[in-house]
Amino acid sequence: MSTASNATWSPLFKEAVSTDFRDFHECLDQDKRIAIHDVAGSKVHARMLARAGVLDAQDNEAIQAGLDTIAGEIRSSTFEWKKELEDVHMNVENRLTALIGDAGKKLHTARSRNDQVATDIRLYARAELDALGLELKALILAFIDLAERNADTIMPGFTHLQVAQPVTFGHHMMAYAEMFVRDLERVGQARERLNVSPLGAAALAGTSYPIDPDFSARELGFSRAFRNSLDAVSDRDFVVDICAAGSIIMGHLSRLAEEIILWCTPMVDFVEVGDQFCTGSSIMPQKRNPDLAELVRGKAARVIGNLTTSAALMKAQPLAFNKDQQESKPPLTDTLENVRGAVTVTAQMLPTIKVKAHNMRAAAEQGYSTATDLADYLVRAGLPFRDAHHAVAAIVGAARDQGYARLSEIPLAAMQAFAPVIAGDVVDVLTVEGSVASRNHRGGTAPEQVRRAAAELRALLG
Amino acid sequence: MSTASNATWSPLFKEAVSTDFRDFHECLDQDKRIAIHDVAGSKVHARMLARAGVLDAQDNEAIQAGLDTIAGEIRSSTFEWKKELEDVHMNVENRLTALIGDAGKKLHTARSRNDQVATDIRLYARAELDALGLELKALILAFIDLAERNADTIMPGFTHLQVAQPVTFGHHMMAYAEMFVRDLERVGQARERLNVSPLGAAALAGTSYPIDPDFSARELGFSRAFRNSLDAVSDRDFVVDICAAGSIIMGHLSRLAEEIILWCTPMVDFVEVGDQFCTGSSIMPQKRNPDLAELVRGKAARVIGNLTTSAALMKAQPLAFNKDQQESKPPLTDTLENVRGAVTVTAQMLPTIKVKAHNMRAAAEQGYSTATDLADYLVRAGLPFRDAHHAVAAIVGAARDQGYARLSEIPLAAMQAFAPVIAGDVVDVLTVEGSVASRNHRGGTAPEQVRRAAAELRALLG
Amino acid sequence: MSTASNATWSPLFKEAVSTDFRDFHECLDQDKRIAIHDVAGSKVHARMLARAGVLDAQDNEAIQAGLDTIAGEIRSSTFEWKKELEDVHMNVENRLTALIGDAGKKLHTARSRNDQVATDIRLYARAELDALGLELKALILAFIDLAERNADTIMPGFTHLQVAQPVTFGHHMMAYAEMFVRDLERVGQARERLNVSPLGAAALAGTSYPIDPDFSARELGFSRAFRNSLDAVSDRDFVVDICAAGSIIMGHLSRLAEEIILWCTPMVDFVEVGDQFCTGSSIMPQKRNPDLAELVRGKAARVIGNLTTSAALMKAQPLAFNKDQQESKPPLTDTLENVRGAVTVTAQMLPTIKVKAHNMRAAAEQGYSTATDLADYLVRAGLPFRDAHHAVAAIVGAARDQGYARLSEIPLAAMQAFAPVIAGDVVDVLTVEGSVASRNHRGGTAPEQVRRAAAELRALLG
Amino acid sequence: MSTASNATWSPLFKEAVSTDFRDFHECLDQDKRIAIHDVAGSKVHARMLARAGVLDAQDNEAIQAGLDTIAGEIRSSTFEWKKELEDVHMNVENRLTALIGDAGKKLHTARSRNDQVATDIRLYARAELDALGLELKALILAFIDLAERNADTIMPGFTHLQVAQPVTFGHHMMAYAEMFVRDLERVGQARERLNVSPLGAAALAGTSYPIDPDFSARELGFSRAFRNSLDAVSDRDFVVDICAAGSIIMGHLSRLAEEIILWCTPMVDFVEVGDQFCTGSSIMPQKRNPDLAELVRGKAARVIGNLTTSAALMKAQPLAFNKDQQESKPPLTDTLENVRGAVTVTAQMLPTIKVKAHNMRAAAEQGYSTATDLADYLVRAGLPFRDAHHAVAAIVGAARDQGYARLSEIPLAAMQAFAPVIAGDVVDVLTVEGSVASRNHRGGTAPEQVRRAAAELRALLG
Repeated sequence: MSTASNATWSPLFKEAVSTDFRDFHECLDQDKRIAIHDVAGSKVHARMLARAGVLDAQDNEAIQAGLDTIAGEIRSSTFEWKKELEDVHMNVENRLTALIGDAGKKLHTARSRNDQVATDIRLYARAELDALGLELKALILAFIDLAERNADTIMPGFTHLQVAQPVTFGHHMMAYAEMFVRDLERVGQARERLNVSPLGAAALAGTSYPIDPDFSARELGFSRAFRNSLDAVSDRDFVVDICAAGSIIMGHLSRLAEEIILWCTPMVDFVEVGDQFCTGSSIMPQKRNPDLAELVRGKAARVIGNLTTSAALMKAQPLAFNKDQQESKPPLTDTLENVRGAVTVTAQMLPTIKVKAHNMRAAAEQGYSTATDLADYLVRAGLPFRDAHHAVAAIVGAARDQGYARLSEIPLAAMQAFAPVIAGDVVDVLTVEGSVASRNHRGGTAPEQVRRAAAELRALLG
Repeated sequence: MSTASNATWSPLFKEAVSTDFRDFHECLDQDKRIAIHDVAGSKVHARMLARAGVLDAQDNEAIQAGLDTIAGEIRSSTFEWKKELEDVHMNVENRLTALIGDAGKKLHTARSRNDQVATDIRLYARAELDALGLELKALILAFIDLAERNADTIMPGFTHLQVAQPVTFGHHMMAYAEMFVRDLERVGQARERLNVSPLGAAALAGTSYPIDPDFSARELGFSRAFRNSLDAVSDRDFVVDICAAGSIIMGHLSRLAEEIILWCTPMVDFVEVGDQFCTGSSIMPQKRNPDLAELVRGKAARVIGNLTTSAALMKAQPLAFNKDQQESKPPLTDTLENVRGAVTVTAQMLPTIKVKAHNMRAAAEQGYSTATDLADYLVRAGLPFRDAHHAVAAIVGAARDQGYARLSEIPLAAMQAFAPVIAGDVVDVLTVEGSVASRNHRGGTAPEQVRRAAAELRALLG
Repeated sequence: MSTASNATWSPLFKEAVSTDFRDFHECLDQDKRIAIHDVAGSKVHARMLARAGVLDAQDNEAIQAGLDTIAGEIRSSTFEWKKELEDVHMNVENRLTALIGDAGKKLHTARSRNDQVATDIRLYARAELDALGLELKALILAFIDLAERNADTIMPGFTHLQVAQPVTFGHHMMAYAEMFVRDLERVGQARERLNVSPLGAAALAGTSYPIDPDFSARELGFSRAFRNSLDAVSDRDFVVDICAAGSIIMGHLSRLAEEIILWCTPMVDFVEVGDQFCTGSSIMPQKRNPDLAELVRGKAARVIGNLTTSAALMKAQPLAFNKDQQESKPPLTDTLENVRGAVTVTAQMLPTIKVKAHNMRAAAEQGYSTATDLADYLVRAGLPFRDAHHAVAAIVGAARDQGYARLSEIPLAAMQAFAPVIAGDVVDVLTVEGSVASRNHRGGTAPEQVRRAAAELRALLG
Repeated sequence: MSTASNATWSPLFKEAVSTDFRDFHECLDQDKRIAIHDVAGSKVHARMLARAGVLDAQDNEAIQAGLDTIAGEIRSSTFEWKKELEDVHMNVENRLTALIGDAGKKLHTARSRNDQVATDIRLYARAELDALGLELKALILAFIDLAERNADTIMPGFTHLQVAQPVTFGHHMMAYAEMFVRDLERVGQARERLNVSPLGAAALAGTSYPIDPDFSARELGFSRAFRNSLDAVSDRDFVVDICAAGSIIMGHLSRLAEEIILWCTPMVDFVEVGDQFCTGSSIMPQKRNPDLAELVRGKAARVIGNLTTSAALMKAQPLAFNKDQQESKPPLTDTLENVRGAVTVTAQMLPTIKVKAHNMRAAAEQGYSTATDLADYLVRAGLPFRDAHHAVAAIVGAARDQGYARLSEIPLAAMQAFAPVIAGDVVDVLTVEGSVASRNHRGGTAPEQVRRAAAELRALLG
């Protein structure tokens, strides 16, 4: 066979393909990821053809054996890829024919590369999503562990990065657990939606052979076969679904990353991340940078870019199949690999976090963090909330002007000047422990609720 | 009350807010969309407070009546919005206090704008998604109708916009029906995932009042209440979910739009779109442009941009709430409104399409569209598929060189020169009707299958 | 005239346009922004036609007067917009004909809405970019002012948000000045590139009238007329150019915003932002949030989304004009308005910043910030840099283990244990003042260099 | 040296880096692209240090020789990359020290990886942009060639993909030439803006050594040195600039690609693309797909995704340097490589295009393409344009109803029924040749103007 890949196709082509163009459209790097799935799909296709009487038993056996040999070569990295054969499909068919002769040329009966590649990348994506699901569970469990160990650890709760109200670090960790529980659902739904077999759609119209798409679907673990052959070869929704789920996962990880970076800065100093996930500086000898968190934050942008690519790629493509779709592979594989990597290393990093409870508690007392509790105290004493809010704001204003850094430092009389109903028992509501303990309803930050929520999620994960 | 909105909050603020800044952060246009939901949420919140004994019955009654009045004002567009009150929440509270006095100042007890706005936009989004779901169903039914009417209409099936194999127009329409069935699932899953009540999370930590978040959730039709108050106020995942689903929907609509634009060009002339969805030209008197399709194609880019915004916005935001989140509203509302509009007008346009079956059939005979059928014929005569493929390519090459535009025009002897096994019965496989009819398996393009698929989807939609 | 907009065009249309479709494609809100430019363009067009003898003097005078009337109506907001007339162009022509009769029907001679709208939005964008340029200059000057006032203010310089080396706050502010100087260049280049007149390209091919595109270009202040009529009506590059420049500007502003948010958190407490740019909380009486900064950060995502839209929109559009291009207006106007708003309010906010020099200096002493200076000291004493780096790292490690928070606290002997060449004069290099003063080369952080750089930029801005 | 990369930095690190994290943050694949520039930068840095007296002559000579050796190893692909050394910088320094001993440890004096990597990628990007500029010129020339050969070839001009007015294929090609002339300017401006040396900024603050940043800048071909060290290490604007320019270039190429795909479909059949840029089908023997065009269209989405990544990455990053910036490399290199590839193969493909002038001309006569000429004829006969437009629309409507496909087929009397001023000389304006020739002003589609524009651009390119 000539090295000019057009000759693969047909005597219609009189000129060899341009080598610059060949380099431009070559995608073997991408295709290597799906090679093992390509072989698996071909094995089932051949068995289906044999059952349908399109292939005789002997040819099928030869094909099965040949494909097993090729699978071995792929796994042991001894398979020899030929760039001039364009893609994984022709590389495998070519090698098969070299191994078993004419039977190899029969494998492509009742099939096109269009349904074949759609099958391969669905199998690849499904396997990756399954692995990602397991990593997400491990990540959620790491948050739950951290939450349970820190159900009573008080830290400042922030809104607008200003100290808002005291919360517990355990509660804060459980907020992340909740996010990733949603992500687990997203990943599961994306997996279910893509788990439909396109095999048998052929080029776009189906085939004139008496095929059994349901058999192929079942054998490859799909939940069902395609219902429309045009849709089967033209659909790449699942790439967008996966990039969207990946972007949300990276969004969650990047929020955590941002917080860890903040918490590690010396002025804040809430946590220390294990050496294993930090790096130093080539010039500044004292540096110890939370590189992992920054890299995760950066990779969030990368996955959002993949999402843009996947959506823009499919815009306005006429049916059924266009070469543009080759470009759906890079955002898919890059997303799956980077998201999985980010989830895995974050889950590994979490247990190495050393919580500096003393610093957290000290910060929780800054910023008049229990002002809302004081307002609630006034409401219980009979003021409408809006009026109570104004009275406390006035108290805080006076405290600031007079140099009191904490509400608990203000003399009772000074508070009474703004709200005469305040009595000596107010001290109880001004402590951070009291504040936290009082938020003792479902979803609140009280230690009891954190423990309850942790147990609930643990059960939910099974 | 002073017009300086900071004075709303507290005597802590000594300077009035900058008017340029006020213009910059004003979002009343967005907020008007959620006003009616804000009132609904407040009514339930007040009832919950009354049940919990935080509000007495009289205050609750006054609040219910006042809010009903306000709801009426909003519905009749007589509600007077005040820019200096920043947002919908303060506008409503302010009006309520004007209507009912001090009881109005008690409404905000055990609540923050953080959990309030999260509740409002979830209610808004849920209502919009429900409406979108109905429009999607109507769209799918319009495709099914068109498919059933054109189950036998033959057109060229394209890959790479080259004629590939004949298909039926009904089959082509059913490919779109399949896409929107997936979209219906996406919309439903996004709806379910967002249908969790944040009410009771207060600013971020929960509240010291004996609230009942489950009651509020139930009364507002949510499937459950939040499990973590920090997550409840900081989560905007649903905006990304909706923009992602919207981008995929617009992707599907833009593919149809692209095809309609192609089909309307005089050289192709496959269909005519109703006057109601076309426009003319200010200079060229003869023009009749399929504007709707082009606008849908353009709006696909707009929704993809919203998706980018929503994902980039949430990247690296520390917990729990930041003002950045105000910017999650425009991509949400713009997406929901444009996607719904596009689905609606497309569903209206479909029945106005006039199919030019004669032109479609003529085009299906171009491009040697039954070459695959000829190769399959050779396989049935004993050739391995790859060899059959090469033989047919040679036949097509010769036909091209000799000026035969259709396979059926080539003399038998000319074909036999390349493949001696070809006999007179080959004519049957070379017709477009024969080709289409032969793809008679589940998901194939045969008229019988199109009708079956249409019936199946109709049943599935209920 | 009938209310059905298709009737505007031609008796070819037998059905009135769908009202849902009309709502879907209506863009008067966008068009109002360009109305005044539309009139200006029309005035020049009519004068050009008169000079060319296509329009007689009387008609031209009537048109000029009528358009002046309309311009007045637009400016005073008394112009009556009619939705059924689709867009600004037909609204103006319609009103003109009402005002002056048949002469109004002659205005559209030798012109199409395609070249007309392209002219209008270029005029609009040019005016907006000019205004933005002025605002950027004001912003840069605000940074220079702040830098000059704080040329000696020492703060920690961060990499990875870890304390790296001491810098001056003035130097930090000048880094932002540099960014916006680049942005000013971007804005200027985008302005120059779009400043080409499309008027005369007509629908797409030019026109059969003896027009003078150079006259129209000159009169409208364009640097030249189009060189290719197809390109003139199909080019929307400038929208992408502007969205790209806008995204970079917002990127710069968002970096500043992030820092201001950090600097305002009580644990860091480096600056205080004026009341005019902060807001309070509806529930927490003590809150004072740097809302402006957060909103700018959020709007950065919005402009990035516009950039995505603009690029995705133009992808794969066949020449010359398609309705998709209507969707280029929203990202253009939204970007220009939000970027200008963000630049303006940030420039207003900068002078209200209260620098807390004491806190900055204290933080600059944390984190062993002069470790690099110590390594440099060792290099001057003869060690290769890499060995010096290792020795200092060991010193810092020991200091950490022994509880010394600052390098200057470590006993000389303890340092000598790792690097015997250290002598008593080392104390000079360990102070933050010494460190900062030593970086006294072009672009370095030394106060002298900050003042020099400030003066240089001031001169550069003219 | 231990294989644990943290040990590279400091004895501060007691735990080896996690291997999963190392895999996650490894970027050698990216770094290999900049290796040769890293060596070039280091050579200049050492010479600068020697001139400043920081390095003695002997050490400098050893370093120069060692770096030359390394450059040779990189060029011949014999350089041995060590993953555990993290990046190109430490790989080179490590190898240098192995080659020349202690002098190698002195190279990093007065430098940080922060200014080093910024220098390297600017050198890399500058070289790539220079190469891209040359390719763009070749592309523009290919369009000019094609335009000159087809200055008289008549084709339909489209708006909304409907036949609008006849144009010449040469004019159409020149529209693309104009787009890429703008792109050449964009590339040049991006190049100039990035051509500023960051070398000497060190970690972020400058350095205490008596460096000469201007010398380094000059020797490396930069137009000047940095003006602010913080900005020098934190600026990645140029990545966004390049991705934006790349997105616009790909946008232009994708518009051409879309048209070529259309023109190759059998129903349109305007051109044939050379075999070298087409591919066949694995199942359909007759297929000949314009794969190059589809792939270019697909890669436009990829580059838009890179643009999103680059902009989202820099959003809200605090100064000065964060690990996130490592993620700026993939979008930069992927953009530069794919854009260059796309420009190159498109320029190669253009001369292989076979123009089917007969088909183009036939299509130009469809769709009543000279209706505007008829309206202009009526204007010359005294009708206001708007009235002329309506009369012609009525004529076209009648023609359509009566089955006349071309205006020239309509009997004179039938036209006069709608516009009595029409006389026998109307036939001249109704031909496509007449229409095209009449648009004979600067930028118009007349053959004379196409030739003039081609010559003008040829001159402009030098």
